[in-house]
Amino acid sequence: MGGSADVRDEVRKTDVSPVEQLHALIATDMAATDKLIHNRMTSGVALIPDLARHLIDSGGKRLRPMLTLAAAQAGGYTGGHHVRLAAAVEFIHTATLLHDDVVDESALRRGKVSANLMWGNKPSVLVGDFLFSRAFQLMVETDNLAVLDILAGAAAVIAEGEVMQLKSSNNLSVTEEHYLKVVSSKTAALFAAAAESGALLSDQGEEFVCGLRDYGENLGIAFQLVDDALDYSGRQALMGKTVGDDFREAKMTLPLILAHARAKEADKPFWKRVIETGNQTESDLDRAITLIEQTGAMQETMKRARAYADVAKAALKVMPDSDIKRALADIADFCVERAY
Amino acid sequence: MGGSADVRDEVRKTDVSPVEQLHALIATDMAATDKLIHNRMTSGVALIPDLARHLIDSGGKRLRPMLTLAAAQAGGYTGGHHVRLAAAVEFIHTATLLHDDVVDESALRRGKVSANLMWGNKPSVLVGDFLFSRAFQLMVETDNLAVLDILAGAAAVIAEGEVMQLKSSNNLSVTEEHYLKVVSSKTAALFAAAAESGALLSDQGEEFVCGLRDYGENLGIAFQLVDDALDYSGRQALMGKTVGDDFREAKMTLPLILAHARAKEADKPFWKRVIETGNQTESDLDRAITLIEQTGAMQETMKRARAYADVAKAALKVMPDSDIKRALADIADFCVERAY
Repeated sequence: MGGSADVRDEVRKTDVSPVEQLHALIATDMAATDKLIHNRMTSGVALIPDLARHLIDSGGKRLRPMLTLAAAQAGGYTGGHHVRLAAAVEFIHTATLLHDDVVDESALRRGKVSANLMWGNKPSVLVGDFLFSRAFQLMVETDNLAVLDILAGAAAVIAEGEVMQLKSSNNLSVTEEHYLKVVSSKTAALFAAAAESGALLSDQGEEFVCGLRDYGENLGIAFQLVDDALDYSGRQALMGKTVGDDFREAKMTLPLILAHARAKEADKPFWKRVIETGNQTESDLDRAITLIEQTGAMQETMKRARAYADVAKAALKVMPDSDIKRALADIADFCVERAY
Repeated sequence: MGGSADVRDEVRKTDVSPVEQLHALIATDMAATDKLIHNRMTSGVALIPDLARHLIDSGGKRLRPMLTLAAAQAGGYTGGHHVRLAAAVEFIHTATLLHDDVVDESALRRGKVSANLMWGNKPSVLVGDFLFSRAFQLMVETDNLAVLDILAGAAAVIAEGEVMQLKSSNNLSVTEEHYLKVVSSKTAALFAAAAESGALLSDQGEEFVCGLRDYGENLGIAFQLVDDALDYSGRQALMGKTVGDDFREAKMTLPLILAHARAKEADKPFWKRVIETGNQTESDLDRAITLIEQTGAMQETMKRARAYADVAKAALKVMPDSDIKRALADIADFCVERAY
């Protein structure tokens, strides 16, 4: 009996991603969250659920609400508010995606076509506002001002990060420091708040809450660094996603910041042209990828992602051993390893 | 002495608008709210206060936060949370203005130029998100989940109203019912929530809270009806504002809905051309104004605004007599009379 369980564990470890493992451990709560999400995105105004569904049912892994549920469950929380909180977290995430997709004239001119162009900028903005409001209504239902404070604060920081990021395009002078601030704000703040607020529900004390917040924050940074690396990687193409989106937007992410900092004099005019003037030809992406590899910028980006993932794992020391703890640690590893 | 006070009252009534009268009655709280607004719109990201200031310091009357402060003061509230709530209300209002200004390609093609085009769509959306988040942070500080619930609910309703309104352009089949739903949602919901949440702080019981909410809601509807009437009125031009904005956007507001419903057969092709196809020439606005006057649509719109203002005044019966009560009643009258 024990043997067959071990075999199942083995199968699970090799064939199933740690995200799916965590999902299985919190399956009941995830199903309840999913139900609540669909229930609360309804509106008498049909365009709202139609547009919201386009993002909410687009096959995202719901990683952020999973962190909320996992933190609450790991802390021994037995109430029902974690499900409301998880749905709120997913609504905030969806609202930021909708607002991040808003395009300006100039972006349209560069040929960027985003999903929200199906409906236009304005409906996307307004549906984002609706979901954002619904998120706060759900949080009010948790009857817990502390979690409201955490998520309202995170939402403000996300907006700050997104505004900071506006300066990152067509701008070779963007520093690593600026980049990391953007990543901490626009991505890691919600990961951190998702885990922290879930942990807070369980009444395990400050150390537990801080540990979970640190886990979420560092996982979020690692996650974004790997995402930015994958945008210049053939691995991404194998995963069926487009490569070079950031490059075409002339966005200064870490691989590019490092490659430019380490560039030979002879390569500097190339970066100036493709990033500062945004004047790109078809073969430029290949050359950019080659330079990012040659200068070691890709390797260095991944090395840093690995370091953040390790900090995330170490932060889990506040939790007693459990399947959830192991899954969270594996997710940190997986977040980096998916790039290889 | 009494005589000279009467004379001052007389002067006040004739020279000073009721909005200014109310402002004077709650001047200390308004100054504190203004200070808090400026304090909380700061950010390490300079673009945020720069852009926010463009709207916040644009000379708006801050009518919505005034309702919050007046309701709290009239209810005898002596704490400090009403100031936080008033600042939150103004932030929500500013965020909706920023998001309402987002334009789509099609709108740009129609030549609409909005203030937010100074910065582009995306910064306006993100700064709106920031202010919206700040609003919720301020509400958390009031330590009162009931007011959070009211304002989160209002924010969702506002978004629904704005989405509903998208269908109102270039669409002669828009009904009065649809129009009134849009107005109740996009405008009156925040007026209602502003007054209701302020009243709630003062612990005067449900009747008082409902009365103030009803006042806010009906004032909001009257306010929007008059605004929509003024857009077709020479009076608006005298006030230094542009006339015909709604017409150029082919937006179906009540004056137009009524004029079209009452139109002679011979005038129907005119409405079809200018609204449904949006194909307008320079003299069309004058003709539209003439038809809106001739059909009695203007008079009828104002009659309805008057009726809502009267309901607003009647709702104030829950308040004992006071200077604030008189000013609120006068504001309802003034809201309609400013159109004459």
